[in-house]
Amino acid sequence: MSELLNYVLNYMKIFDLSIDSLIRLALAEDIGSGDKTTGLLVDAHAQGRARVIAKEDLIAAGFVPFERVFTFLSATVVCRFLKDAGSVVLKGDTMAELSGPFSTLLTGERTALNFLQHLCGIATLTRQYVEKLKPYRAVLLDTRKTTPGWRVLEKEAVRLGGGTNHRMGLFDALLIKENHIAACGGITAAVTKARSHLSPLLSVEVEVRNFDELQDALEALPDVIMLDNMSLTDMKKAVEITAGRVLLEASGNVTLATLAAIAETGVDFISSGAITHSARAVDISMLIEKM
Amino acid sequence: MSELLNYVLNYMKIFDLSIDSLIRLALAEDIGSGDKTTGLLVDAHAQGRARVIAKEDLIAAGFVPFERVFTFLSATVVCRFLKDAGSVVLKGDTMAELSGPFSTLLTGERTALNFLQHLCGIATLTRQYVEKLKPYRAVLLDTRKTTPGWRVLEKEAVRLGGGTNHRMGLFDALLIKENHIAACGGITAAVTKARSHLSPLLSVEVEVRNFDELQDALEALPDVIMLDNMSLTDMKKAVEITAGRVLLEASGNVTLATLAAIAETGVDFISSGAITHSARAVDISMLIEKM
Amino acid sequence: MSELLNYVLNYMKIFDLSIDSLIRLALAEDIGSGDKTTGLLVDAHAQGRARVIAKEDLIAAGFVPFERVFTFLSATVVCRFLKDAGSVVLKGDTMAELSGPFSTLLTGERTALNFLQHLCGIATLTRQYVEKLKPYRAVLLDTRKTTPGWRVLEKEAVRLGGGTNHRMGLFDALLIKENHIAACGGITAAVTKARSHLSPLLSVEVEVRNFDELQDALEALPDVIMLDNMSLTDMKKAVEITAGRVLLEASGNVTLATLAAIAETGVDFISSGAITHSARAVDISMLIEKM
Amino acid sequence: MSELLNYVLNYMKIFDLSIDSLIRLALAEDIGSGDKTTGLLVDAHAQGRARVIAKEDLIAAGFVPFERVFTFLSATVVCRFLKDAGSVVLKGDTMAELSGPFSTLLTGERTALNFLQHLCGIATLTRQYVEKLKPYRAVLLDTRKTTPGWRVLEKEAVRLGGGTNHRMGLFDALLIKENHIAACGGITAAVTKARSHLSPLLSVEVEVRNFDELQDALEALPDVIMLDNMSLTDMKKAVEITAGRVLLEASGNVTLATLAAIAETGVDFISSGAITHSARAVDISMLIEKM
Amino acid sequence: MSELLNYVLNYMKIFDLSIDSLIRLALAEDIGSGDKTTGLLVDAHAQGRARVIAKEDLIAAGFVPFERVFTFLSATVVCRFLKDAGSVVLKGDTMAELSGPFSTLLTGERTALNFLQHLCGIATLTRQYVEKLKPYRAVLLDTRKTTPGWRVLEKEAVRLGGGTNHRMGLFDALLIKENHIAACGGITAAVTKARSHLSPLLSVEVEVRNFDELQDALEALPDVIMLDNMSLTDMKKAVEITAGRVLLEASGNVTLATLAAIAETGVDFISSGAITHSARAVDISMLIEKM
Amino acid sequence: MSELLNYVLNYMKIFDLSIDSLIRLALAEDIGSGDKTTGLLVDAHAQGRARVIAKEDLIAAGFVPFERVFTFLSATVVCRFLKDAGSVVLKGDTMAELSGPFSTLLTGERTALNFLQHLCGIATLTRQYVEKLKPYRAVLLDTRKTTPGWRVLEKEAVRLGGGTNHRMGLFDALLIKENHIAACGGITAAVTKARSHLSPLLSVEVEVRNFDELQDALEALPDVIMLDNMSLTDMKKAVEITAGRVLLEASGNVTLATLAAIAETGVDFISSGAITHSARAVDISMLIEKM
Repeated sequence: MSELLNYVLNYMKIFDLSIDSLIRLALAEDIGSGDKTTGLLVDAHAQGRARVIAKEDLIAAGFVPFERVFTFLSATVVCRFLKDAGSVVLKGDTMAELSGPFSTLLTGERTALNFLQHLCGIATLTRQYVEKLKPYRAVLLDTRKTTPGWRVLEKEAVRLGGGTNHRMGLFDALLIKENHIAACGGITAAVTKARSHLSPLLSVEVEVRNFDELQDALEALPDVIMLDNMSLTDMKKAVEITAGRVLLEASGNVTLATLAAIAETGVDFISSGAITHSARAVDISMLIEKM
Repeated sequence: MSELLNYVLNYMKIFDLSIDSLIRLALAEDIGSGDKTTGLLVDAHAQGRARVIAKEDLIAAGFVPFERVFTFLSATVVCRFLKDAGSVVLKGDTMAELSGPFSTLLTGERTALNFLQHLCGIATLTRQYVEKLKPYRAVLLDTRKTTPGWRVLEKEAVRLGGGTNHRMGLFDALLIKENHIAACGGITAAVTKARSHLSPLLSVEVEVRNFDELQDALEALPDVIMLDNMSLTDMKKAVEITAGRVLLEASGNVTLATLAAIAETGVDFISSGAITHSARAVDISMLIEKM
Repeated sequence: MSELLNYVLNYMKIFDLSIDSLIRLALAEDIGSGDKTTGLLVDAHAQGRARVIAKEDLIAAGFVPFERVFTFLSATVVCRFLKDAGSVVLKGDTMAELSGPFSTLLTGERTALNFLQHLCGIATLTRQYVEKLKPYRAVLLDTRKTTPGWRVLEKEAVRLGGGTNHRMGLFDALLIKENHIAACGGITAAVTKARSHLSPLLSVEVEVRNFDELQDALEALPDVIMLDNMSLTDMKKAVEITAGRVLLEASGNVTLATLAAIAETGVDFISSGAITHSARAVDISMLIEKM
Repeated sequence: MSELLNYVLNYMKIFDLSIDSLIRLALAEDIGSGDKTTGLLVDAHAQGRARVIAKEDLIAAGFVPFERVFTFLSATVVCRFLKDAGSVVLKGDTMAELSGPFSTLLTGERTALNFLQHLCGIATLTRQYVEKLKPYRAVLLDTRKTTPGWRVLEKEAVRLGGGTNHRMGLFDALLIKENHIAACGGITAAVTKARSHLSPLLSVEVEVRNFDELQDALEALPDVIMLDNMSLTDMKKAVEITAGRVLLEASGNVTLATLAAIAETGVDFISSGAITHSARAVDISMLIEKM
Repeated sequence: MSELLNYVLNYMKIFDLSIDSLIRLALAEDIGSGDKTTGLLVDAHAQGRARVIAKEDLIAAGFVPFERVFTFLSATVVCRFLKDAGSVVLKGDTMAELSGPFSTLLTGERTALNFLQHLCGIATLTRQYVEKLKPYRAVLLDTRKTTPGWRVLEKEAVRLGGGTNHRMGLFDALLIKENHIAACGGITAAVTKARSHLSPLLSVEVEVRNFDELQDALEALPDVIMLDNMSLTDMKKAVEITAGRVLLEASGNVTLATLAAIAETGVDFISSGAITHSARAVDISMLIEKM
Repeated sequence: MSELLNYVLNYMKIFDLSIDSLIRLALAEDIGSGDKTTGLLVDAHAQGRARVIAKEDLIAAGFVPFERVFTFLSATVVCRFLKDAGSVVLKGDTMAELSGPFSTLLTGERTALNFLQHLCGIATLTRQYVEKLKPYRAVLLDTRKTTPGWRVLEKEAVRLGGGTNHRMGLFDALLIKENHIAACGGITAAVTKARSHLSPLLSVEVEVRNFDELQDALEALPDVIMLDNMSLTDMKKAVEITAGRVLLEASGNVTLATLAAIAETGVDFISSGAITHSARAVDISMLIEKM
């Protein structure tokens, strides 16, 4: 196990349990009853080595599942990463070197690259967003719009890209939306009800769409208020009204093009679903050879 | 269970077993120890209904996991799809209507939409590729460059977009690549070895990069020859040399922009990884209300 | 499925997934290769009914796993609860009535009662603690000292007993202890580091053992400060020093006997491990008869 | 792996399979999407060590799951037990020493202690019962009143406390109760029916509540007769009537206070549910430090 | 669910859990990524029916997994068995009728028949053994020589064939063999050691190979003595020596041809591995038609 | 891990995942709550060794699951195979030597032998079929009539016996049977429909019962035609009619006795279900001793 894999596993224990479920699914769907080509044509005793090459500039992410695919297939695969997770990798750079059973390298290649290319894609796109936000105080947040089954991996890639994670899921914070508010008869009622039953350590965010709701929310004093799909003008006005009493998150119509303008309104957070659900895979290849 | 879900389940039995594993992962990562907001604020006995609205033009796909997310949470959710899988949906169209426990609709919304938006995204992008190929005889194939854990779902979306599936994985056909060829000492040796040990029903494809390899491959007579990253000129020449003796697949640098030119070379198949690994999520929303 | 089961399942979606894992373990360990006695001696077509009787005063809890044990064995078992979860049940009261296959009632009885007696035991003990705290503003919290595998169930029982849940686990809030503080070089450094990387919605608690640490903590301004094993005098002084700037939690040596005195110090929360790890099972029996 | 863990695993092969299911549940419910505090604040490369200290006198048990929690999180944790399982540990004694990644020790601490404190609690209470029975020939048995999911672990703790296990579950012996008897039309009919279909190696016990039933049972000659909730006087008379022809088990109202009196009636076995379902957790702490 | 399936499920609760694991494996290995033939060629809405026909005389068994394969694929399949489990079925008889989705019947046919033919094969061979033993008092036992993964199913088939089950596995009785005896220093020591630590309800069998060992075993008084690979003459002598003090089981070289001679020695039990590990599949076919 | 195990694992990656599920089932059903005999009577620290002896001539197969059973129980078991998989083993030959914890060898013996005897049985019977076919060009195929749960293992044993695998399951090739043909309105329609939707790499076989169907099939040009239950005369005529245009597979009534006559008809393939579903277990024993 590389030092890096060890590091990340230490960072988020149990982490490997959920990754392993996904990797097991991934290997099962690809290998099924066996890698017939490699099984029939490649000497099972042969050893091999490989280099992972970036075919375009990118931000490194996804090292843990990349390595785990191979060690899942054979405990003897050794993987050494030449770049730090989260660092810039230039076109042509070698990202990692592997050695192990030649057949294992061939069998695992596609699945491992599928993980790597997707997660580097997310980190790379996130970094572009974060760079755009550099001149501003607004912090980039991700959302729950992640690829089902990949939540932890994609949120890690966002962090590596320089973004900040919003809540992990429905369990570690409250986000009170329109329907919840209607069910309680108002924002203040909803926040009060939530606070009275909740662990003192769970936070509460409220989603508002206009100034009336913002006013209600400011009276209820949640930890964060989300401005949902507001115009730039309205967001700016909301920042003024709020006057720092509650943290503000801008949500909706967030693209690379609109990012700076949104940040200029003075909101504390800007959340983007696109960085996880619409990042394209970056181009990475793996050169394998028999030793 | 809607007629559609039933239909697709009949189409690909067991299918639900692997989908269920992924859906279980997805719900577990999102809901964890509970949807605290809905749990605390919404009356558990309330019933609700919802409409799923396309916010842009798209090709419908992903209905099975979309519905399954909700029935997984509560067997009483009823889901009716107003569009056929594979059909064109216009911006503003209602794709589906649901009814069931109000809280279930709220809790499942995000995960269900994450499935739907990703898979409609793939079908929509695939359809664009397929439309481009209409004037030509070349058939669009997908690849193994799918999101790990999603192989069956994404290949279904490709079919709904009008594409044709390449092999499912490493198990249901042979694709002999450079490393396999080197390990056997040549293309003919590799194909012969494969054929002599194989089920008479498993097919064999060989990847070639130049005319020497093509010549060798044509002597070995595999079922398909993949032209790997060849220039348009070379592909055209390869088609001439092959003269219909073996099916030809073009691979590499396939984009919407290059598609027509590749098809004009006369190859039988064009395979694209981008339709699965780089399709952006399309915009779909869900309007939920209490009954 | 009873209305109650439905209610609770709606309260905490996915909940049944983790309960089902535990119930599966429980049934597997008890039934193994089969209930030989019932299998050999009882007519498989016979129907039966049962009443669940409290043999001592108690607070009702554990209805969900109790019912689920039987429906797991046979979908046709019907279970009607005559008491509300969280309500007082007097010795001799009938808590529930069941009907279904006679053999299922016999096979599931012990496992179902094991769940019920343990969870009612926790709710009952919790209620005693809560009653003691009635005259005071301090709120009773549970801890992570739960029976491994039972976290969600036991925390639910605590709520039904009138207690409030502390964090669910290591994932939904930060509790910075001595070792974490040492690793960061001080309380302020630790809180600052945590806050700078964290989702804006995750809360932070700090554990302190003396006034120096309390002073540091008050400067770092976490959401909650835990006074760890402090004397009554020291706790009182800590409340004075804090003067409402941060919520205070008393922890350590909390028993029924010390509860009032601790509350009198003016702390906001008192947490007890004993209500989950040392509650005795209450006495409940099940009268089964063939119909 | 310590010698002890190895020993116990050898004692009861497969054992670890079922423990692992429970430990997996336990870690998943506690760690969920990650130990945020340790992950953010502790250097992932730091090594640590720990000592496990008894805070009261107790009987050692639960070493296997205690160690397994840590090795589950990191294979490099080394655990050395300074006491034998089943031996007396005095307040202040060090029970075990661990070394391994500092963060792993912090993350696993609570779950591992939860296992240890609960199982030592059972062994300790069992030992008190067994000591009371020393002057008598009666042997202490446990029951199926165990914590669901913990059967094998708790029965092991009972053995370490000096108790003897009754049947493991519904599968490895027959216990014919009132309802089974009624279903067959009498005790003799029930025993005969059971014996005629059964493996010659499975034993049969019959539960009786009065002398008529005892008389019937004595004619049916099961391997053991359980005297259910009989008065001391009746038990004594039952022992006389039985005159050693069948082994007798006393059940019901068994407490530390009544144990000696029950043993004096001359029964062969006394079974107690309290030793498993109502043992309080004993106090054990873990001192962790960075190396 | 047919009445029969219900019956058997009631007979051996949880039973379906372990069968389901095996059926899931079986369907996964056969269907994998989908029944391509049926999926592409058969209308998913078509309903069908089928008849299961015996192509030779046989004893009915295996109904539960046969039906479960289909209900696993589609809950709407209805299966009606026209023969009782354990009864004689003549060549040409219809054993069962099914109706349900036409495609489900086609997809499940082979796996369902694989279960049925194997288990009827075991019941049929067992019946032949049992018939041979009719004139004698000896009872036919099975062994642990079953197909891995099929223990419960095959033991059920043995019972349906008229045989009696020996212990289920290593957990529900002791069988002390040569190596165990050597480890304890003698048969008496082994039996005594076993008895002193064991649940009073677990039985003990000892394996002996000659008269010295038999003599030792008779002094140790286990519940059963197994005569391992003894000649007919020796078995007869062993029966005389034992004189009814302990039950005797003959083991080794048991075939249809030797059965009567072994029974004539007067042993109580004869155990055969061949009835489970070497029964051939009987011929059964399924006629499916579209409705 | 022996070199052999490593070899085979390399041959068919992921392979171990599905074997492990079956081995887990097998160990769970045999060991359940523990190997009581070995646990109570054998010193857990003792080491042992064993030899595996063929008690009759056989073809070696099943080494992987045999070894895996032991390494599953204890990672320290070392297993050395003295014969090559697929080679002839003579009565009395030592097939393998093991060393490891004495108790592990005792506990795993029966389950490991159950795997080995069954799979060697299949390889041995297959070899007899293959020998019969030596003078002919016909190749022996297996079928989907395998033991549910054992598909991959039994197909491996067939290959080791010298047979060739037919398709793995319903997913890796199409076999169009009577019902599929009827559903499409004819053989040509069925083949055309299949080909038009299918991956270009999936093959198509058609089952025919008479010359009319053969004629239709020859026009549709599938990859293989199966002659279902035809008489020898008809098969011969079918071979003449086909004249090499399509590969022909003979199916039905294939026994050792009829094999040569079928081969003489000139068919390309002969498929047999009996080699997998009716092979008897061969006799193999394991001599274990304490070191």
